[in-house]
Amino acid sequence: MLIKNALIVDYRGARKEDVLIEEGKIVDTGRFEKERDNTVNAEGKILIPSFCNMHTHIGMTFLRNKGEGLTLHEWLNKVIWPYERKAKEIKGIIYISALVGIMEALRSGITCINDMYFNMEEVKKAVEEAGIKALLTPDICIGNEGMNEVEKLLNEKSNNIKIGIGCHSIYTCKREMLEKALELSKKKDIHIHIHVAETRKELFDSLKRFGKRPVEYLDEMNFIYQKTILTHASWVTKREIRIIGERKATVVHNPTSNLKLATGGIMPFEEYVKADANTTIGTDSVASNNSMDMFEAMKTAGLLQKHKYWNASSGNPSIILKSATYNGFKALGFKSGLIEKGYNADLILLKPDENMHPLNNPLTAIVYSGKPYNVEKVWVNGKIVYEEGEFPTIDKERVLEDFNEKMNEFAGLS
Amino acid sequence: MLIKNALIVDYRGARKEDVLIEEGKIVDTGRFEKERDNTVNAEGKILIPSFCNMHTHIGMTFLRNKGEGLTLHEWLNKVIWPYERKAKEIKGIIYISALVGIMEALRSGITCINDMYFNMEEVKKAVEEAGIKALLTPDICIGNEGMNEVEKLLNEKSNNIKIGIGCHSIYTCKREMLEKALELSKKKDIHIHIHVAETRKELFDSLKRFGKRPVEYLDEMNFIYQKTILTHASWVTKREIRIIGERKATVVHNPTSNLKLATGGIMPFEEYVKADANTTIGTDSVASNNSMDMFEAMKTAGLLQKHKYWNASSGNPSIILKSATYNGFKALGFKSGLIEKGYNADLILLKPDENMHPLNNPLTAIVYSGKPYNVEKVWVNGKIVYEEGEFPTIDKERVLEDFNEKMNEFAGLS
Repeated sequence: MLIKNALIVDYRGARKEDVLIEEGKIVDTGRFEKERDNTVNAEGKILIPSFCNMHTHIGMTFLRNKGEGLTLHEWLNKVIWPYERKAKEIKGIIYISALVGIMEALRSGITCINDMYFNMEEVKKAVEEAGIKALLTPDICIGNEGMNEVEKLLNEKSNNIKIGIGCHSIYTCKREMLEKALELSKKKDIHIHIHVAETRKELFDSLKRFGKRPVEYLDEMNFIYQKTILTHASWVTKREIRIIGERKATVVHNPTSNLKLATGGIMPFEEYVKADANTTIGTDSVASNNSMDMFEAMKTAGLLQKHKYWNASSGNPSIILKSATYNGFKALGFKSGLIEKGYNADLILLKPDENMHPLNNPLTAIVYSGKPYNVEKVWVNGKIVYEEGEFPTIDKERVLEDFNEKMNEFAGLS
Repeated sequence: MLIKNALIVDYRGARKEDVLIEEGKIVDTGRFEKERDNTVNAEGKILIPSFCNMHTHIGMTFLRNKGEGLTLHEWLNKVIWPYERKAKEIKGIIYISALVGIMEALRSGITCINDMYFNMEEVKKAVEEAGIKALLTPDICIGNEGMNEVEKLLNEKSNNIKIGIGCHSIYTCKREMLEKALELSKKKDIHIHIHVAETRKELFDSLKRFGKRPVEYLDEMNFIYQKTILTHASWVTKREIRIIGERKATVVHNPTSNLKLATGGIMPFEEYVKADANTTIGTDSVASNNSMDMFEAMKTAGLLQKHKYWNASSGNPSIILKSATYNGFKALGFKSGLIEKGYNADLILLKPDENMHPLNNPLTAIVYSGKPYNVEKVWVNGKIVYEEGEFPTIDKERVLEDFNEKMNEFAGLS
């Protein structure tokens, strides 16, 4: 496939070149006079790497807009956990929730998710059918079933799907579970994915129970290393930021979720950049967002940094775009996120509608003006997975019907 | 026209009814068995009032993404004002900018703008052609030409277009100009629209120059009354909030603009609600946003309140929706913003795509999950002005071509 005449933008900047794709990979960029059988004329359009949404619970889509107006701990105890216990009685609700979530994700150009949940077999099935990429991290804090899931799924991983270990948090996972997770992570060379330092309550409880701040508590057991993905990581000291940077770990900023659950602390994203941590961006679940839209996540992340430091030059669009693309894929071990020879053809073609006129600065335009309605085509490994409102790999009508049926079944259970 | 079977949602809640529209007005809601010649089957769709964007400079669209990374005062002095002086040499650039801005506005269901700028004749032409509504407030702080514009336009107002007076700010408008504006406002019973208490610098300078805080300074000359629209109004004391509430004035929250320009203070929106001020929402110009999307504005406004007060129950979606619809129209004197007999048929039909599945709570779904891509149709006075990516009143291709030409002319001037 040849994509001709697009304005190519990745976090390094903009250039006008053609992109030659073979067997799912970018094999060259430059100027190619000879037309291919499969040539996409992208004159006047913008080609960017697709997004890696570094923190989701995509099976939670059935809980969208539930528990509105509650803080994290009320929301978990009063709404989310009771409903999730109920959902375990409904086979297939996680699968169909994941498909609905993936459609929403694709509409904003997300082609890879880092996901933590239960019943991850069902999420895996949805991810495979949709043809996207994922790191799936079953939550082992919920009991033996979680660890069993990890071990079972490890036998079924594929080029597009990686398996890791989810540890919900230091307040739901006992120390021996965390140590067991770390041991397995090192032994199998797989990721650990954990919520940490999300709220002030978590920080206070950690100081009280462990005599240490959350990141220090984890670091004491060598939990934080290159395969560790720390999500939220907002209530941290400069020392904790330095630790995370030195360990070359990945942090995930979920700006909308933090605001929605009124966690109070804005993640010091730019300090992580300076400390050389691998900074990435996530939407979190639609139950704590209430959307899965990476354009929204990028813009909100950038704006919050400007606000936090009273510095309009914060939220640099190149760093934001890098965090939403290249850094996420790098964390998960996928060679995507740059438009460059040797990288996977995980791409978005944007049509710059009136909302991107004038373009002026392409990086700014993508990060601060871009909207899902600008997304015209999305490719994973050179294969179309979204095109102008249509999902070639998903039967949208059927999925929404099945979803509504499952929701009725769910409502009937209460 | 009959809109059948929609889920009707306005700030008061949701109900399933049909809506009967005649001569641009809602004449009845309820159940109507008899089909009309013009019946819209809205089964499975959501009908909401259209949005009133209470603070824009829509002619500024040509400056989108310019001056990225600057705080308000640098941004005005180094980028915006010099470019605007240049733009005055290009006839028609404000007109074509306004049309591009209106297309973007319509895509998120905005049918009414409260606009402050220069060359407002050109904005008026664009607003009329597009068939939307507006309060146009030429900025009188830029010299005599502003006041002349107000007086000229006052002879040309129409049912859809109201004329008011724009006073940029207390730091650009001399006291005698503010007093002159107030006198004309009272005499003609027209609105005054002013930026106030936007930044800490404005507050400090006001204390130094006038010995008073910005709102107190204005109130001393009786500037704040029912026809006054105070935009930003973020750096305020409880006393200033009380004054604004007692005067029954309107305040406009522009959450994205405030974050982008790193103004530091989050507008105490909910305190204004409690003080009985007329709270409304705006996007500000795309030069300080960088979008014109009321779904984004509503969500950001709500999320910032949750964050500001560390209270997840802040950002109540009914109050946010009321501020984005009913309160804005009420401020400007248009009978729109409710789906009720006697109101104008200024409406949006939303298709709840996967991003609104499950709906769970309709008000929450609209305010926190809604996106421009959910907007299927937009009506002003019962007339379609947007439908599935098309603008029946605007020749999009021609407008974007003309806009690009003007931008080239503009670039050639430097």
